[in-house]
Amino acid sequence: MDIPATPAAPTGPLTELLDGRWAHVRRAARERMSELPSPATYDLTTEQHRALVFDELRELAGAGYPRVGFPKQYGGDGDTGGSLTSFEMLGFGDLSVMVKAGVQWGLFGGAVEALGTERHHDAHLRAIMELDLPGCFAMTETGHGSDVQHLRTTAVYDPATREFDLHTPHEAARKDYIGNAARDGRMAVVFAQLVAGGAGRGVHALLVRVRDDEGNPVPGVRIEDCGRKAGLNGVDNGRIWFDHLRVPRESLLNRYGDVAEDGTYSSPVEGDGRRFFTMLGTLIRGRISVAGAAGSATKSALTIAVRYGLARRQFERPGSGFDEVVVLDYLAHQRKLLPALATTYALHFAQEELVTTLHELSERDHAAVEYTDGEQGTEEHDRRQRELESRAAGLKAATTWHATRTIQTCREACGGAGYLAENRLPQLKADTDVFTTFEGDNTVLFQLVAKGLLTGYRQHVGELGSVGMARFVADRFVETVIERTAARSVIERLVNAVTPNDEETDLLDRGWHVKVFEDREKHVLDTLARRLRRAGDADADPFEVFNDAQDHVLRAARVHVDRIVLEAFVAAIDRCTDEATTALLNRLCDLHVLSNVEADLDWFLGHGRFTTARAKAVTGAVNDLCAHLRPHAATLVDAFAIPESLVAAPIATGAEARRQATQREHDVAEAAGTTR
Amino acid sequence: MDIPATPAAPTGPLTELLDGRWAHVRRAARERMSELPSPATYDLTTEQHRALVFDELRELAGAGYPRVGFPKQYGGDGDTGGSLTSFEMLGFGDLSVMVKAGVQWGLFGGAVEALGTERHHDAHLRAIMELDLPGCFAMTETGHGSDVQHLRTTAVYDPATREFDLHTPHEAARKDYIGNAARDGRMAVVFAQLVAGGAGRGVHALLVRVRDDEGNPVPGVRIEDCGRKAGLNGVDNGRIWFDHLRVPRESLLNRYGDVAEDGTYSSPVEGDGRRFFTMLGTLIRGRISVAGAAGSATKSALTIAVRYGLARRQFERPGSGFDEVVVLDYLAHQRKLLPALATTYALHFAQEELVTTLHELSERDHAAVEYTDGEQGTEEHDRRQRELESRAAGLKAATTWHATRTIQTCREACGGAGYLAENRLPQLKADTDVFTTFEGDNTVLFQLVAKGLLTGYRQHVGELGSVGMARFVADRFVETVIERTAARSVIERLVNAVTPNDEETDLLDRGWHVKVFEDREKHVLDTLARRLRRAGDADADPFEVFNDAQDHVLRAARVHVDRIVLEAFVAAIDRCTDEATTALLNRLCDLHVLSNVEADLDWFLGHGRFTTARAKAVTGAVNDLCAHLRPHAATLVDAFAIPESLVAAPIATGAEARRQATQREHDVAEAAGTTR
Repeated sequence: MDIPATPAAPTGPLTELLDGRWAHVRRAARERMSELPSPATYDLTTEQHRALVFDELRELAGAGYPRVGFPKQYGGDGDTGGSLTSFEMLGFGDLSVMVKAGVQWGLFGGAVEALGTERHHDAHLRAIMELDLPGCFAMTETGHGSDVQHLRTTAVYDPATREFDLHTPHEAARKDYIGNAARDGRMAVVFAQLVAGGAGRGVHALLVRVRDDEGNPVPGVRIEDCGRKAGLNGVDNGRIWFDHLRVPRESLLNRYGDVAEDGTYSSPVEGDGRRFFTMLGTLIRGRISVAGAAGSATKSALTIAVRYGLARRQFERPGSGFDEVVVLDYLAHQRKLLPALATTYALHFAQEELVTTLHELSERDHAAVEYTDGEQGTEEHDRRQRELESRAAGLKAATTWHATRTIQTCREACGGAGYLAENRLPQLKADTDVFTTFEGDNTVLFQLVAKGLLTGYRQHVGELGSVGMARFVADRFVETVIERTAARSVIERLVNAVTPNDEETDLLDRGWHVKVFEDREKHVLDTLARRLRRAGDADADPFEVFNDAQDHVLRAARVHVDRIVLEAFVAAIDRCTDEATTALLNRLCDLHVLSNVEADLDWFLGHGRFTTARAKAVTGAVNDLCAHLRPHAATLVDAFAIPESLVAAPIATGAEARRQATQREHDVAEAAGTTR
Repeated sequence: MDIPATPAAPTGPLTELLDGRWAHVRRAARERMSELPSPATYDLTTEQHRALVFDELRELAGAGYPRVGFPKQYGGDGDTGGSLTSFEMLGFGDLSVMVKAGVQWGLFGGAVEALGTERHHDAHLRAIMELDLPGCFAMTETGHGSDVQHLRTTAVYDPATREFDLHTPHEAARKDYIGNAARDGRMAVVFAQLVAGGAGRGVHALLVRVRDDEGNPVPGVRIEDCGRKAGLNGVDNGRIWFDHLRVPRESLLNRYGDVAEDGTYSSPVEGDGRRFFTMLGTLIRGRISVAGAAGSATKSALTIAVRYGLARRQFERPGSGFDEVVVLDYLAHQRKLLPALATTYALHFAQEELVTTLHELSERDHAAVEYTDGEQGTEEHDRRQRELESRAAGLKAATTWHATRTIQTCREACGGAGYLAENRLPQLKADTDVFTTFEGDNTVLFQLVAKGLLTGYRQHVGELGSVGMARFVADRFVETVIERTAARSVIERLVNAVTPNDEETDLLDRGWHVKVFEDREKHVLDTLARRLRRAGDADADPFEVFNDAQDHVLRAARVHVDRIVLEAFVAAIDRCTDEATTALLNRLCDLHVLSNVEADLDWFLGHGRFTTARAKAVTGAVNDLCAHLRPHAATLVDAFAIPESLVAAPIATGAEARRQATQREHDVAEAAGTTR
């Protein structure tokens, strides 16, 4: 295939582009973190690790780190994007620190801020920021994880004492996997079914003391340690039971629902469903943080595996005497690492764009900017919020699955060395593994994305379950409209330049790439909508209709996310001003697109999109692009600019290169007859 | 799709079929292991775990366990198949025990037996069996893992002292990842480049003392601990350096090559390459053991995930009130677990067949049976041995990759619960992870398989590297012949019954399945041979020709293994005498085949094998078969008959079912108005 020559690119402009809008936050984090000891914790006991992580959180608090994301009136910077970028950078260190920080300041602090009102903010926000009040986010129960709407913990209001009776009615209703619960938490935001004025009001959150100042559970609260986990053992996950614990009326985080002294319930949001999703929506940052950290861990793993792939040699090149082949010269090795590297870039740019969108939406919230585009303000705001939530869900699923797959591949690509704890891949794998199922199970999140697409983000009353979606689709006529998110004018231009005959178009034509992704998304969505509409038939069981189409639903979400990720990559390349960097990124984007297409060739062939010749050409092009990008592999990982002390793995540092070099020196000397 | 009704099957006949020829060994192992404590070791320090594992090995030795596989003249049973089945059963317990036992009795003991002669056997075999002599298998070096032929450790014979000078010439030549080295090993089988009579003789093995009776390294030997690993921390892996260690001439394991006192070298096997591969071939049992243990770990993980999937409910079924959907009723959940379960059965039967073949070949070896089929005896024996090695390599790669993928999927299918160490999935994942890259890196093994196919197992002089293969193919005309391995007459009958028009054939027609797999293999191999033959062109760089085709090479190995695995499944069903069990296995085999075909639809479409309608029908059939097999899921995992104390995970035992039941009891009571 005819691939344009790609000259060597410097890492500087590449790092600058990757660093993006919050480059100053990234630089500061690098400086701080490069002074940290190695993030390796594999020789610590659980208790030692927990203590170390808590100490690191104290240092972060002391350095004012958590301030970035909190409101200005409580001493914060109110910089949402900066705060999320900080979390992403924590992903280069010990991921237990990132998760513990996320629990304390993101989930616990974030819930108090977003769901509480002034009385809670005044009383607790500073103490939370400064870690004087360590807390838990007690949402998940043993019996209800994904289906949060049907949690079973109850909070029954008693007007006689002006208290809530908080209770765990049975074993499956215990709070489970709660971070900060087993060791450090003093208070907890507890989600429970609120009963007030004689009626159930749906899930609400209460701010509840669970331990006294000495660290003992308060009467009415039982806490158990979840014990050792696959990874993240610096985080103290636990289980909590409530035995008719009495908590004052003021404990209710009452921004979206309040109970008067006499038990009268009131809320600014109409409808239990809409209120519930409004409350959940405020918690979107957790998901975005996890995706960011997953991206960072993936970059660490790729840095280690690519560097080792460049240092290690195996099997002689024929006729070369003692010249052994660098393993990254093997096509099979390139195919393991380089497409994953390309997709890591793509997801990075998509994450950056998501953070920017959230940042701007929350700036707008804070400034109370009115919508002026003719649409009714609340409705348009809701629509944008739903769209953002959907993107966050989709990108979280895509990024964390990519992390799990890629880190696994990196481990295997490093053989026995990759299995040693000192080389960090085991811990990266184990720590990130739960990312695919916490902060929303990925399979459930993809269903949420598909639902959003089918309903055009316009339905407010939502059910996360299967049936909700089938019912929605049955109710209304769905017309799929691909709404471009990023770099609209650039993409318009690219797509318009595509010649109509697909078969003839250059495989590296970016406009063709976009068109292929858009066409796939539209077709998958259209056919899905048709299938689900059957749920409205009189004789249909909506559950069965939905369930039979579940693989189709998941595919719809995936190809949608694929398209918005590609748009973000295109937009990033468009922002790049350095010529050599642009050329390199273009080839990387080609590899990202064509390896995605290759993985989905069954669809393209099965839907008459490609001829068999075209399909073969795609596979050939992926091979060619791997070989073409091989000389740039070191640049591409170096541009992540992870502090060397955090890369840490001996196989990715000078030590390994030197060790491998002893062999070549010896071989050369032997060939010259100067040994033995 | 029209799937025949499948009545409930009892587990008894299913277990009997799975237990197969060495059922008595399996039953004895179950009895012994069900008295062991839980295999969970996650709360132990590395040293505690190592000590525990060594104690367990002592108990195994005391109970006479290792005897099964050793020769009768040294007190063993000489039962190769029984020995491999024992290792497979160890895979249900702590995998560190399995690996440590494999190092001691399989690799170390096996090498002394297979590569040594009477003097070594008389002196050491009993002590090895009884664990009085713990030992290492010191083959891999930091710089050479897959390319064992080019190890750099040297053993230079000195006729003056009648000793070898064993030396590590540079840092990359240190022995690395060596099991039993860091703590327990007293002797080691060390692989080194033998130099005698003034010439290099290729890689040979020496039996060398590395520690004295007090456990201190002997002078001239340095040992370092590899430290913590992703898993298998009960095994003490280490690094070994030799500093001109003098070892007596008699230390050479001299079955395939000997050095006389004056330094004269002699060997019963002509050619360095052939000798090397003959020596390696004797070590095939390690690979087969790893595949067996990977299968057992996969069964444990599936038992846990399927049972949890049957106990856990999430999201209400519409219109049902409090009835929440059992998660295994979701198509997406079925698709995660049931095709993997079907393939686990398929691989089990293929493994059983491989063990039987090895057993019979080694019986024949021991009995020195002559080949009478007209072919020259040695050549035919060599051909069968190569074929066996190829099958072992291919099945090891397929089974361990399947284990890694499936255990990962099981972890995710269990959500947060799957991340807790108490539920065993983390340890199963971490312990088995290295299986894909040790005892032969899977990617390299698949290349070996492809090479065997292209050369018809007839080439003796082998190179594991890339170029060897290209050269072979270039040298000779290759004609692909699919040689059926199992149940030949059954398969003949099945295939002949297939109607010629593929499109019309029932998707559940077993003859069509076999035909589809055979056709795919033949086409992939034929086209690969054509591509590689270009390496013979005058202007071709053989490395480039091979490297460009590397993905094609790997595919060839995969589809070949797929076909022999299917044949083994067909043969097993044919052996089954219970009607209901046969019906169930037939559906399971359908799911195995069609999910395999579905994963490869791009190939079938891209090579004009299927119409798009046929491709869609395959996906529909996989969905239908998942739903159809869902009621049998519990039976299918129960039939593995893993002792409950080894399943161990609370989410897979009565405890979780009871916990989940509290919720439904509560819901039912609440619906009846008897609570609150």
